[in-house]
Amino acid sequence: MDATAHLHLSHLIYSDWTLIESEFNPTQLHYKETVFTIGNGYLGTRGSFEEGYPGARNSTLIAGVYDAVPVVYTELANCPDWLGLIITIDEERFRLDQGEILSYERSLDLYQGLLSRQVCWRSPSGKILELDFERLASLADPHVLALRCRLTAINFDAPVTIQAPLSGYIDNQGYSHWQWIDQGYSSDNPHIWLHLRTRASAIELGMACSLNVLEWGAERVPHQESQSEYINLLNYPALQTRVNLIAGQPVTLEKRVTVYTSRDVANPHEVAFSKLDELPSYNELKTAHKKAWADVWTNSDIIIEGDIQAQFAVRYNLFQLLISASQDDDQVSIPAKTLSGFGYRGHVFWDTEIFILPFLTFTQPTIARNLLSYRYHTLNGARRKAKSENYKGAMFPWESADTGDEVTPRWAISGNHYDPDTRIWCRDREIHISADIAYGIWHYWQATGDDQWMRDYGAEVILDSAVFWGCRVEWNSREERYEIRHVIGADEYHEQVDNNAFTNRMIQWHLEKALTVYQWLQENHPVRADELAVLLKLTRERFARWQDVINNLYFPFDATTGLIEQYQGFFELEDINLAAYEPRSLSMQVILGIEGANQRQVLKQPDVLMLLYLMRKRGEFPYNKTVLQTNWDYYAPRTDITYGSSLGPAIHAILAADLGETELAYHYFRQAALVDLEDLRGNAHEGIHGACAGGLWQSVVFGFGGVQLTNSGPVATPNLPSHWTRLKFKLHWQGQWHEFDLRPLSSEQIGGVIFDLDGVLTDTAEYHYRGWQKLADEEGIPFDRQKNDLLRGLPRRESLLAILGDCTVTEDQLQEMMERKNRYYVQLIEEITPADLLPGVNELLEELQQKEIKIAIASASKNAQTVIERLGIGHLIDVICDGYSVQRSKPAPDLFLYAACQLDLTPDQCIVVEDAASGIDAASLAGMLTVGLGPVERLGKANLVLPNLENVHWADLIAGLSPKAKANQWNLPVAIS
Amino acid sequence: MDATAHLHLSHLIYSDWTLIESEFNPTQLHYKETVFTIGNGYLGTRGSFEEGYPGARNSTLIAGVYDAVPVVYTELANCPDWLGLIITIDEERFRLDQGEILSYERSLDLYQGLLSRQVCWRSPSGKILELDFERLASLADPHVLALRCRLTAINFDAPVTIQAPLSGYIDNQGYSHWQWIDQGYSSDNPHIWLHLRTRASAIELGMACSLNVLEWGAERVPHQESQSEYINLLNYPALQTRVNLIAGQPVTLEKRVTVYTSRDVANPHEVAFSKLDELPSYNELKTAHKKAWADVWTNSDIIIEGDIQAQFAVRYNLFQLLISASQDDDQVSIPAKTLSGFGYRGHVFWDTEIFILPFLTFTQPTIARNLLSYRYHTLNGARRKAKSENYKGAMFPWESADTGDEVTPRWAISGNHYDPDTRIWCRDREIHISADIAYGIWHYWQATGDDQWMRDYGAEVILDSAVFWGCRVEWNSREERYEIRHVIGADEYHEQVDNNAFTNRMIQWHLEKALTVYQWLQENHPVRADELAVLLKLTRERFARWQDVINNLYFPFDATTGLIEQYQGFFELEDINLAAYEPRSLSMQVILGIEGANQRQVLKQPDVLMLLYLMRKRGEFPYNKTVLQTNWDYYAPRTDITYGSSLGPAIHAILAADLGETELAYHYFRQAALVDLEDLRGNAHEGIHGACAGGLWQSVVFGFGGVQLTNSGPVATPNLPSHWTRLKFKLHWQGQWHEFDLRPLSSEQIGGVIFDLDGVLTDTAEYHYRGWQKLADEEGIPFDRQKNDLLRGLPRRESLLAILGDCTVTEDQLQEMMERKNRYYVQLIEEITPADLLPGVNELLEELQQKEIKIAIASASKNAQTVIERLGIGHLIDVICDGYSVQRSKPAPDLFLYAACQLDLTPDQCIVVEDAASGIDAASLAGMLTVGLGPVERLGKANLVLPNLENVHWADLIAGLSPKAKANQWNLPVAIS
Repeated sequence: MDATAHLHLSHLIYSDWTLIESEFNPTQLHYKETVFTIGNGYLGTRGSFEEGYPGARNSTLIAGVYDAVPVVYTELANCPDWLGLIITIDEERFRLDQGEILSYERSLDLYQGLLSRQVCWRSPSGKILELDFERLASLADPHVLALRCRLTAINFDAPVTIQAPLSGYIDNQGYSHWQWIDQGYSSDNPHIWLHLRTRASAIELGMACSLNVLEWGAERVPHQESQSEYINLLNYPALQTRVNLIAGQPVTLEKRVTVYTSRDVANPHEVAFSKLDELPSYNELKTAHKKAWADVWTNSDIIIEGDIQAQFAVRYNLFQLLISASQDDDQVSIPAKTLSGFGYRGHVFWDTEIFILPFLTFTQPTIARNLLSYRYHTLNGARRKAKSENYKGAMFPWESADTGDEVTPRWAISGNHYDPDTRIWCRDREIHISADIAYGIWHYWQATGDDQWMRDYGAEVILDSAVFWGCRVEWNSREERYEIRHVIGADEYHEQVDNNAFTNRMIQWHLEKALTVYQWLQENHPVRADELAVLLKLTRERFARWQDVINNLYFPFDATTGLIEQYQGFFELEDINLAAYEPRSLSMQVILGIEGANQRQVLKQPDVLMLLYLMRKRGEFPYNKTVLQTNWDYYAPRTDITYGSSLGPAIHAILAADLGETELAYHYFRQAALVDLEDLRGNAHEGIHGACAGGLWQSVVFGFGGVQLTNSGPVATPNLPSHWTRLKFKLHWQGQWHEFDLRPLSSEQIGGVIFDLDGVLTDTAEYHYRGWQKLADEEGIPFDRQKNDLLRGLPRRESLLAILGDCTVTEDQLQEMMERKNRYYVQLIEEITPADLLPGVNELLEELQQKEIKIAIASASKNAQTVIERLGIGHLIDVICDGYSVQRSKPAPDLFLYAACQLDLTPDQCIVVEDAASGIDAASLAGMLTVGLGPVERLGKANLVLPNLENVHWADLIAGLSPKAKANQWNLPVAIS
Repeated sequence: MDATAHLHLSHLIYSDWTLIESEFNPTQLHYKETVFTIGNGYLGTRGSFEEGYPGARNSTLIAGVYDAVPVVYTELANCPDWLGLIITIDEERFRLDQGEILSYERSLDLYQGLLSRQVCWRSPSGKILELDFERLASLADPHVLALRCRLTAINFDAPVTIQAPLSGYIDNQGYSHWQWIDQGYSSDNPHIWLHLRTRASAIELGMACSLNVLEWGAERVPHQESQSEYINLLNYPALQTRVNLIAGQPVTLEKRVTVYTSRDVANPHEVAFSKLDELPSYNELKTAHKKAWADVWTNSDIIIEGDIQAQFAVRYNLFQLLISASQDDDQVSIPAKTLSGFGYRGHVFWDTEIFILPFLTFTQPTIARNLLSYRYHTLNGARRKAKSENYKGAMFPWESADTGDEVTPRWAISGNHYDPDTRIWCRDREIHISADIAYGIWHYWQATGDDQWMRDYGAEVILDSAVFWGCRVEWNSREERYEIRHVIGADEYHEQVDNNAFTNRMIQWHLEKALTVYQWLQENHPVRADELAVLLKLTRERFARWQDVINNLYFPFDATTGLIEQYQGFFELEDINLAAYEPRSLSMQVILGIEGANQRQVLKQPDVLMLLYLMRKRGEFPYNKTVLQTNWDYYAPRTDITYGSSLGPAIHAILAADLGETELAYHYFRQAALVDLEDLRGNAHEGIHGACAGGLWQSVVFGFGGVQLTNSGPVATPNLPSHWTRLKFKLHWQGQWHEFDLRPLSSEQIGGVIFDLDGVLTDTAEYHYRGWQKLADEEGIPFDRQKNDLLRGLPRRESLLAILGDCTVTEDQLQEMMERKNRYYVQLIEEITPADLLPGVNELLEELQQKEIKIAIASASKNAQTVIERLGIGHLIDVICDGYSVQRSKPAPDLFLYAACQLDLTPDQCIVVEDAASGIDAASLAGMLTVGLGPVERLGKANLVLPNLENVHWADLIAGLSPKAKANQWNLPVAIS
């Protein structure tokens, strides 16, 4: 990415499904641990090495296993490390920080969910060893983890000691959450187990592990020499085996691990233990695992052709989301950094409902439902938060963990002795989260039609947080309006603002939906409606108050300009020119300071634009394209999209695509797609940017795919980046799968080109002008070239009426004048010769004929036939449609549809070349691709605008029209579980 | 202790040098780990078990090995655990949480510095094993640690696996500070090593370890079967050995460990490794260690006889201080919780200079000097702190660690989601620390005469912090005085006060000493004086300003009452009656809340009284006994001595002793002495209360020993608790050792008893009254029994003058009246018979005669001879001294001195029994012990007050007089290193 200073040589090779790291660079240790994270929704394990590495940040995070920690209240506890495989030849331990790496390749196969590594290593004493690792976190059975290593001695025979430990000594950036309870060994079917408990939350964890040594190629046949021995170090049990390695004779080590917590079962260590006993072989585990992945990809995959890095990056981000989302636990949600790192401590933000959820709502609706049920299950925490601030109802926490209580730290504690600590105000002020959750619920309901869940879970969340909004708004009696003061909006560079447009509109929207939901309940589920009325104290007066708030909540919108003020007073801040700070590699908040950013018109992330995006889906207020363009022009240049929030780029990509700026959209898309893979922001080591990954899916489907959610389901109006040759994905909507297979224009698709005549092939317009001029002169009507320009594309009658203006004439006079002018014109065009062909026309027509592309002329002129003959191109034209062909003239599509029909082509097989705006409109209405010749001001609506046809070849037309791909869309029946 | 609710059955048995825990109680695990801490000044290791225990808080803290940690900036990093010894019989691991403990005894031998434990354990399968552990942290070589375990199988033969690991997996209450660098094994002289580095401060640590298995009784002869094997688990290397244990044949395991950090040497792991190679046997290590301890105790011991718990407790507290104080590192100081626990994170407070330092100044002056040099070495941190608050000079941090920068956390972060965090204001406001350090330096200098250190180190600290004071004071022009506002004084219950008496006077004192020190430098070390003048910008104007501050700094003292107001406005706070809150087991701050305590006249710890104690040593302003009594009466009842600060009890003990309230002093002494041993405050698990231990030494030496520091050296005026039979200690003063051997009164010391006659042996007073009454009646002077009472103890002439009052008579008339009254009296006493002896007198006199205690009568009466004969006790009396014997009557001491002389005894061999206050005064002036008969109101000055002699025996007198011990004091020459 050229836009970033964090560029480094990542040694990554992208293929469609597989990422290959071709070289080991210790300075990238932690970022690559994040990149090579695997998981199964139950847990995530960072891509640390089996043999360890100094300073490595091994982590296995299990969804929902939180434990108390100072300052930030609670965090996902790093669980015992199951990766360890220690291989010692004589007294030399295999380790990449010593000896020499002769070859190295690490690869992540997204389709199979497998992480593997091939290393050829020379020990300090010169022994050369080949190691071939592979690991998986089973998607078929999330309590099963497995890894395998094939060892081959290259130039030595020697005894090798292999240890497979379970390490209870594991910490979160130094903080260790586990207390040892017990450990043990069973010699029957040799395995060890470890039983721990979190310090404060008292969640118990049981892990068991076996180690098998197999002759290469043998399956479940133990290696003769090997015999498992128990190393009983406290909190660090290990199985140890010795084999004599013979040069060239590979040996395979298999470590299989089971893990349960007391969140899953009552006696996790016993269940882990007995589960291990009945576990099939590594290969069988792998087969089941691969099948599970194939099933998931069937629904969630996105195919992109023509852009291998984008193809991989999109799949990679979806993979990272899929391994963070529990298949069946509705008491957990997806943390901001997924299960892949310690950033944000495993806390859950609006990232889930606004950024990540759509991907799951539309491709894995069961998981989406679980994520929303998590908010239902944590309602009591949200109620405690509201109560702590003396509000009624449910006030969801900005950061949420196991209970729904607020876990945003109050302070960013300074490590410096004398610098002040920084108060983190989000916990107090970034209140829009409750509306974001309602937004997620509402759209899940709209997409799935899951009425039962809405009745039993969703409605209570929407309604009780609406109760909170009813208390949170303030009545300004001087202005006679409701206001919401002292908030942080979506843009976090401004920490204490009044009447933030995003917040106010989201809350208004939330209250609207709350009333709708309650009305729906009353009509369809009156018992539940009554139940909630009692539980949440929903009275007629309360509903009336909500309506009053909806009607009178202030929204800082200038209807004349269409410009929305981010919050009251934003436009009075000092303006900023971000370009003046380039090049930079720091956020504007770091550059300006918190107060400096606060005082300027600079945004960390989209705020008004975020609102416009969210309201775009159903075209709700204040969304419309003009408002979008106006606010985009104002806010986009003031947004710190590179180093502000990672939530920004994908949203900007969608809006840029909406505004037709596909290449700019692609630029933002890459910023989102590669944020972790290429560590664009230098913080990938903290874990995957989950919201960014979710936004990426939206940018592909809603941005490039141009999917709109209509009452009859999702419809694509794609805007593909120019080099994408295919975009294919599935969406689940109201119980049905909709498959979209979007391809750009290809020459094979196009069967014919329909040319306008005047101003396109020849300048007959000049002859028309001369005819009209003569007539006008005779009639004494003022007329000149400038007025003539206004007639472009108009048929004869309309042209004459335009010339006559206010002059009243009879129909007979009118007819006479048209005939007279036509007479003059026909006389004039008698003078036309092939030299009157515009530059490039002949060459293009000949090329088309050669390529067997049919050619039609569609002209409003009734003299088209004559003109074409005079031009000497009659032999190149297949069909001539003229003023006699159809009744309705352009901008009605009739003439082009007639032409297509004459060519025996469907409209989507036709390209229209026009020089008039009305012609472009007509062609668009006909469903044809359009090429406008002339100035963009006039022809901006055309799919492709060219000055003229000089040097224009068939390939240029196809390439130029490619971004406007064609959608193929199928609806498939589906069962929602 | 009856005063505490934290009382529990500690299962502790106290002997003079050894503490024995007779039972293992898992609920006391952490508190006892603190209690059984061992160390050597370089490091401290808590008394955790070698075999581990669930939830154990093993810790080894090395002085100065700090590492960054959130919120509290830095803390002593818990170092790798060297204790581990894992013993497995078949598959049963020795562990106290399973199987059955058949017997258990843990003991700490202070004299030898050895912790041992004898356990007889039955495994779950019934194998009975005896284990006898012993461990030491060598005082002879602080980098050496060693432990030994003798194993005896009682009822089985079986193979036993023994593992001796070094565990790099160690944390501070969950936070782990170490990054693994490397580890290894050497098979030559089998040992393992571990090389780590702290995460942030990058201090490297190397530890090496060997394991020997010996036949019992064999020395350095390896057990035949045993062979050390290397277990190479990452960050957890271990040596493993197997032996076949035969019932009744003990085997000894010896684990020897060496430890170095990069604070000590460049390559700590290599030095640890080679050091281990040349290490002598366990027994040799132990011998050197014991010798080093014997040397330390020679100077630092305190002998208390008659109170075995007090004897042990005092030694225990000194032991804990001695193992926390580095022998030779002058870049470290003693943390508030020593090296024994995680409380206060290893930070250094005023606890060191004010509470702990005197013990070391007077018994280990080299260590005291190192502790003060630590402040010199951290001056730059103090300068940075001053600069951060825009002051000049050095502002020492309230909490200090490695750099001298402020490390007091800003916040006590609430663990609850909605409770506010508590701002810790000490870092900003508890500024008296800088004066406390000057106080420690000054008194070190006074005690040692270490001029060279003062010149090179101490003076710069005193002067640069005086520069800070010069900026910190504020001039109040309305009051025309300097003030110091916005402080926390010694009492931390009041967080924002102006003109705190303690702070203001300490600062004034500091400035006085700063001027003195600079003058001394100018006179004795002019080069250094000039050097410092340049370095610290010490100008004539600055000195003049200091003098101005000294002269005009406000001190809230009412000279008429002698009462000092703790700070401006304190007396206007709501008063408190602490008794009304009893019984309680919480601090008053917890009961009242921070604001509640702040608004009341309740103290966490002595503040005015602390000042009076600190100024007591040289009798500096405002100290005098009247002021002390006045302020004691006011502040002592308002001080939360039980659950406020542990700094309080020892100071109260000293002041109570000063005020003659020895039993009350003893009550406070016990609160200090047992705070950790009996976990009086319920927080011993956090580590030893170092300041309390230091205060305890002061309470014994300055309180009970009554040591005053005079210009001619320390002088004892002891006030021993009644049951103490001996108090012996040494003090180092100006290059000489002063040995104090203080013993209470013993019967052997006393040679005679001198009795007053009237009101003591008989009621001749009645006869006197009748004589005077008759005379008064004859002369017409009003007189009655009430007036007669006023004559008690007066000689005849003074009695008559008192009766006459304003009546003027000639000398002749006076003589006549005296004779007349005497005549009447003599007539009256003719009636006296042995029946007039007061109850108990005869028995006591006979007992004295039997015990060969000489008896004298010392009466102002000139008829004593007669009375004694009439009473029939003449045969029991050795000497009668009467109105004829001496010129000056009581309260002159003459009569008693005459009597002693007659008895051939020195005054200190005599006890005087009196019924009159003037008689008690006379006897005190004579230097004799006094027994007062009658009401305390009259006789309060007597050493012992009894109602009369009924049932009083010799032993009662001796016991009653015992607390007023006699001091024997020797001065010994000594070389100061």
